[in-house]
Amino acid sequence: MITSTTNQRVKNVIHLMKQAKERRAQDVFPVEGIRMFREVPPAFRLETYVSESFLKRPENRPALENVKYETVSDTVFLAMSDTKTPQGVICLARQMHYLPEDLLGTAAGWPPLLLVLENLQDPGNLGTILRSSEGAGVTGVLLSSDCADIYNPKVVRSTMGSVLRVPFCYTGSLRDQLRAWKDRGVTVYAAHLKGTTDYTGQDYRTACAFLIGNEAKGLTEETAALADRYIRIPMRGRVESLNASVAASLLAYEAFRQRN
Amino acid sequence: MITSTTNQRVKNVIHLMKQAKERRAQDVFPVEGIRMFREVPPAFRLETYVSESFLKRPENRPALENVKYETVSDTVFLAMSDTKTPQGVICLARQMHYLPEDLLGTAAGWPPLLLVLENLQDPGNLGTILRSSEGAGVTGVLLSSDCADIYNPKVVRSTMGSVLRVPFCYTGSLRDQLRAWKDRGVTVYAAHLKGTTDYTGQDYRTACAFLIGNEAKGLTEETAALADRYIRIPMRGRVESLNASVAASLLAYEAFRQRN
Repeated sequence: MITSTTNQRVKNVIHLMKQAKERRAQDVFPVEGIRMFREVPPAFRLETYVSESFLKRPENRPALENVKYETVSDTVFLAMSDTKTPQGVICLARQMHYLPEDLLGTAAGWPPLLLVLENLQDPGNLGTILRSSEGAGVTGVLLSSDCADIYNPKVVRSTMGSVLRVPFCYTGSLRDQLRAWKDRGVTVYAAHLKGTTDYTGQDYRTACAFLIGNEAKGLTEETAALADRYIRIPMRGRVESLNASVAASLLAYEAFRQRN
Repeated sequence: MITSTTNQRVKNVIHLMKQAKERRAQDVFPVEGIRMFREVPPAFRLETYVSESFLKRPENRPALENVKYETVSDTVFLAMSDTKTPQGVICLARQMHYLPEDLLGTAAGWPPLLLVLENLQDPGNLGTILRSSEGAGVTGVLLSSDCADIYNPKVVRSTMGSVLRVPFCYTGSLRDQLRAWKDRGVTVYAAHLKGTTDYTGQDYRTACAFLIGNEAKGLTEETAALADRYIRIPMRGRVESLNASVAASLLAYEAFRQRN
């Protein structure tokens, strides 16, 4: 059992919890909590750590069958965890690598339904978007390289596992990728102040992509200019915009509603 | 200028930022940031604090016209603020008091559209729900008394001002209030596992209320039993539920879509 936070492997997990750079360099990310742990495909699990008290509870045994794990003391586990009241299991998982192709969802049973995120910063929003994406049948999520790291523990947690299932991909050039998709028949929509058409008044049953901008600044002019059509989510009262994850979810679910 | 955090008024603001009990006892809540500050009706502003550097920027002057304010040093302001990079203005505002009656929205120009929150815990979710509520024309939000405090600074911030405009009210008994509304013709819907009808397949153009449960546990059996109808937000993939603020927003916006 590991009882000290000076242990090299413990120190490494702590680094991986905190630093996107480190996660990228090692090509891994920490997955915490029993539910999420169970959903990581065994081939993607690299190292597993459980706390002493996690191990003592008989109901946790089945999840550890055929799993090679390391036990750490509760105090050490608390230091490794990203939460205040840890459940007692963390594994390091291999990062997933999708190609832009994979986001078109040939296996989804319907045309491409894409979300394109520009400079999205809030980990909670990003996680929630992934979760709604899976629910609404989004075939893939494209992120500009200045978005928050999808492997940030808070993002991973708020996806409730969807991060393991929804294809996503970062790009240095939204423009090039969007142009490539447009050439293949994807219609690009931006929820934008310029929009005059209500978002429910468009037909999303064919291949489409929705652009979602930064929480405070919205889409850059440059990216907004790539849209084929500007749409509006109507708002009553004095609301100027909705939360980014709410806007993304409304658009994705409107497409889902039409496709059903 | 106040230059010490031992100043009684500064200490009081710090308490009010942290403690719901204190906010309730004094019947006030702190509002932070220039945009939100501007939206507080003058009659509700009790005390205003600005940082030294806020005061130095000429663009901030108009917001302070006819406002009695106290200047504090930047260091003291940072201690008072709930954010890491404060904008430099905090005011204490009087809490709003609505009656359950007010939530029915006689001035909204359409039938009651209510959200009912049970044991909602995440301040970000609560704030986002208020923001979406105003956008979707929700006439009022009812909260069970075990929900997070709506005057928590993080809630207030994520409402983007909607907390000042959407009528809301806490209740010790969801049951009694829902029964009273049902007697007045409000149909109560619960998004629930029991639901077999797609949420888009119901008519929300007459008075309706949507029940939203706790983030992890959903609705209690007792509260779910008060619903007239169970509905389902369809989900693809392996998603079991959506984020609470997303679910609330989808339901409210579906009602909005139908009423338009």
